[in-house]
Amino acid sequence: MTLTEMGKAAKQAAAVLAQAGPKKDMALRAIAKTLEDHQEKLLAANAADLAAAEKAGMRPALLDRLRLTPERITGMAKGVREVAAQEDPIGQVIEGGVRPNGLEIRRVRVPIGVIGIIFEARPNVAADAAALCLKAGNAVLLRGGKEAIESNRACVELMRAAVASAGLPQDSIQLVQDTSRASAAEMMGLTGYLDVLIPRGGRGLIQSVVENARVPVIQTGAGNCHVYVDESADIAMAADIIDNAKTSRPSVCNAIETILIHRNIAEKALPVIGARLLKKKVELRGCAVTREILGNCVVPATEADWDTEYDDLILAVKVVDSMEDALRHIAQYSTGHSECIVTRSYENARRFQQEVDSAAVYVNASTRFTDGGEFGLGAEIGISTQKLHARGPMGVRQLTSSKFLVLGSGQVR
Amino acid sequence: MTLTEMGKAAKQAAAVLAQAGPKKDMALRAIAKTLEDHQEKLLAANAADLAAAEKAGMRPALLDRLRLTPERITGMAKGVREVAAQEDPIGQVIEGGVRPNGLEIRRVRVPIGVIGIIFEARPNVAADAAALCLKAGNAVLLRGGKEAIESNRACVELMRAAVASAGLPQDSIQLVQDTSRASAAEMMGLTGYLDVLIPRGGRGLIQSVVENARVPVIQTGAGNCHVYVDESADIAMAADIIDNAKTSRPSVCNAIETILIHRNIAEKALPVIGARLLKKKVELRGCAVTREILGNCVVPATEADWDTEYDDLILAVKVVDSMEDALRHIAQYSTGHSECIVTRSYENARRFQQEVDSAAVYVNASTRFTDGGEFGLGAEIGISTQKLHARGPMGVRQLTSSKFLVLGSGQVR
Repeated sequence: MTLTEMGKAAKQAAAVLAQAGPKKDMALRAIAKTLEDHQEKLLAANAADLAAAEKAGMRPALLDRLRLTPERITGMAKGVREVAAQEDPIGQVIEGGVRPNGLEIRRVRVPIGVIGIIFEARPNVAADAAALCLKAGNAVLLRGGKEAIESNRACVELMRAAVASAGLPQDSIQLVQDTSRASAAEMMGLTGYLDVLIPRGGRGLIQSVVENARVPVIQTGAGNCHVYVDESADIAMAADIIDNAKTSRPSVCNAIETILIHRNIAEKALPVIGARLLKKKVELRGCAVTREILGNCVVPATEADWDTEYDDLILAVKVVDSMEDALRHIAQYSTGHSECIVTRSYENARRFQQEVDSAAVYVNASTRFTDGGEFGLGAEIGISTQKLHARGPMGVRQLTSSKFLVLGSGQVR
Repeated sequence: MTLTEMGKAAKQAAAVLAQAGPKKDMALRAIAKTLEDHQEKLLAANAADLAAAEKAGMRPALLDRLRLTPERITGMAKGVREVAAQEDPIGQVIEGGVRPNGLEIRRVRVPIGVIGIIFEARPNVAADAAALCLKAGNAVLLRGGKEAIESNRACVELMRAAVASAGLPQDSIQLVQDTSRASAAEMMGLTGYLDVLIPRGGRGLIQSVVENARVPVIQTGAGNCHVYVDESADIAMAADIIDNAKTSRPSVCNAIETILIHRNIAEKALPVIGARLLKKKVELRGCAVTREILGNCVVPATEADWDTEYDDLILAVKVVDSMEDALRHIAQYSTGHSECIVTRSYENARRFQQEVDSAAVYVNASTRFTDGGEFGLGAEIGISTQKLHARGPMGVRQLTSSKFLVLGSGQVR
C-alpha cells in the first residue's frame, strides 16, 4: 500500500470516527484487553527487535527504551483504559449565541481528521498515540523507528482487530511499514491527507520534521528548561526544586538543563545546591563566578553549554547580576518549554511569570510538573513548545478542531 | 535592513507589546487619527501606484482594489478604531484551578509574538492587519504586492510614527520594502523570528505559501462553497439564499460556486432559481439533468467546474439523486469553508451539520454570513480553512496563544 493509499483510507476512516460517539470508547477498551490477552505475541515480536538491535550494537539506554515487559504492556493497557474513561471532547459547544438577525451560532468541537505520528524506537508510543487520536475521533498514521518495527507491527495488528471488533474501520489505525528516510519524507509532504504531523522523539527528529514538512506540524518536546534562584530565594527550597528538576528523570523534556543564580545569594546558595547535586553524581558546568565559589569540582562552561539539552546528569550553572540578566539569558537560550523562579519576592514572582515566554512558567515549584496528568488534563501526546494551536501539554482536547454550526430561517445578507 | 534584522527588531518590539496593556489602544487610536489627518499624503502615494499600474496595463477590477479614496481612508480609520474598542484578549484566564498538591494553575492568553502577513495589491490590508496584530500584542511584518508599494510605504510610515507617539516601539509594525519573489521566499523561511505567516490574497498566493513556507502558516480564504437544496426545501427560500450567496458579492470567499439540487425537487425548483440568477446575469454551468430542465441557457458543466472558485457571476449546478450524493460531492470538492442546506427536514438538517466537514455549516441561511463581524467576533484577518489553531473567521482572539502559569510553595515531583 502506498502512503497516498493509506492517506485515502485514513480519510475515509476519519469520516466514520467523527460520528462514532461511544463506539470509540468500546474500541479503546477492546484495544486494552487485546494488548493484555496477547502479551506473548507482543513480547515475541519485541524479542526479535531486541535481538536485532543488540546485534547492531544499540546502546543499553536505548535498548531499555525498546524493551517491552509484561509490566510495561500492562502499563500500556492501563493508559489506553484511562483515555477511554476521559470525557469525549467531540460535540462539546465551545461558545455560541443568537445574533440580532436571529441566526443561532454554535462553535462545536470536531476531530482534526488524520494525524501522522513519527516516533523513534519506543514501542509503547504506538498504543499511547493511537488511543489519544482515536478518542478525539481522528484516524492515525503511525511511523515508528525501524528498530521497533516488529513490535509496532504486532501492536498495530492487535489494535486494528480490536477497533474492527467495536464496529469501527480498522484503517482508523495504520502503520507505515516502510521505515526508510524516504517514507518519512513522503509523509511530511502528504498534503491533502494528513491534517497534522506530530514528531515524537529527539531534537534531531523534530528539527528534521520542522525543516522539511509541508503538512502542518506540532513541535513537541524540545526542553532547555531553567531554574532561576532569585536574591530572596529560600535556599533549601531552591535546592529541593533543582535536585528534583534535574535528577528525578534527567532524560525527559521537563527536566532542567541550566540554573541561574543571583550574585547576591550565590555564595550562600551555591555550596548547598552544589553539594546536593554532586552527591547525586550530577556533573556541574559553571561560569567563572560559579567556579570561584565551588572550585574545581565544577567544569568550566562554554557558550555551547547554555544552548544544550543534556537530557543527562549534567547541569549548567551561571551566576547572574540581576533578575534582568536572568530574563535575558532565558529569552536567549530557552526553548520555551518550562522555566521556574525560586523567590520570596511578590514583585519578582509576578514579573517572571509575565515576562518569561514559555509554555509553563513556575514560581517555587519543580518544572517536572509540566505534564498532562500533573496539570489535570489527562494523558498527553507531548508537550508543545510552539505557540500555534496548542502550547504546553497536549491532551485529547488539543487533538481537536472546531466548526461553526449556524441555524437560520432564510436569512440573507 | 535585511529580513533577519527586521525579524530581530520585531521580536524585541513583541516583547514590549506583550506587556503594553492599554497603551496598545492608545497606539491604535493614534493610527486612526494619523490616517485621517494625512489623507493627502496617502492619496498622493496611491496616485503614484495607480499611475504605474495603469501604465503597466492593470485590469480595471484590480485597479479598483488598488485605489484609495477619502471614503476608503475614512473606512480604514474607522476599522482601526473598532479594533481599539474591542476587549483586550491578553491576560484573559482561559481555564485553571488548584491541583491536589496545592499547585495553582492558570492558562492565560498571551500574544503569539511576530506575525508575517503577505498580501496583494490592496493597500487597506496594511492598516487592517497591523491593527489586529497590534491589538493582540503581536509585532507584524507586512509584505504587500509591488503594485501598492508607495501606498503601503506611506501608510506604514504614518502608523509607525503613531505607535511611537503612544510610547511603543515603532518596529511593532514594519514593511518589507523588497517586493521581489526572493523576499517572499525568504520570509517563508524566517524560522526563529516569524511565529506564523498569514497569506492574504488569491489562491495562487496562498498555495505558494502553503507549499513553500517552513514557518507555521494559517491558510485563509479558499472558498469553494456549496448550497444543497434538499427534497423538502422551501423553494422561494432556496432562491433567496442562492441569489444572495452568489450575487451579493461574487468576488469574496464566502460566496457560493456550486449548487446541488435533489432530483425530486429539481423540476420545480430549478426554473425558479434559474430565472432569478439569469436575471442577475449569472452564467449557469449545469449537469445533463439541469440542461434537460432549463435548456440551452445553461452551459454544459465539465469536471473542472465542480473544482473551480469562479469568484465571479458564474454558478455550477448539479442535480443529485440523494442527500448522500450531495454529501459525497461536498466532501470531494469543498475547500472546507462554508456550506448550506436548504431544507424543512429536521433529520436532514442535523445530519448535514454533523457530517459536512467545513468551517461553517448552515441550515437555511446564506453562506455570506461567514465573517467575523457577522458572527459577532469583531474584525477579522481572514477566514481560516485549515483545522489547526483557528477555523473560520479569525479575529483578535485567534491571533493569540496561551501559557500556563503555575504558583507553588516548593512542590517537587
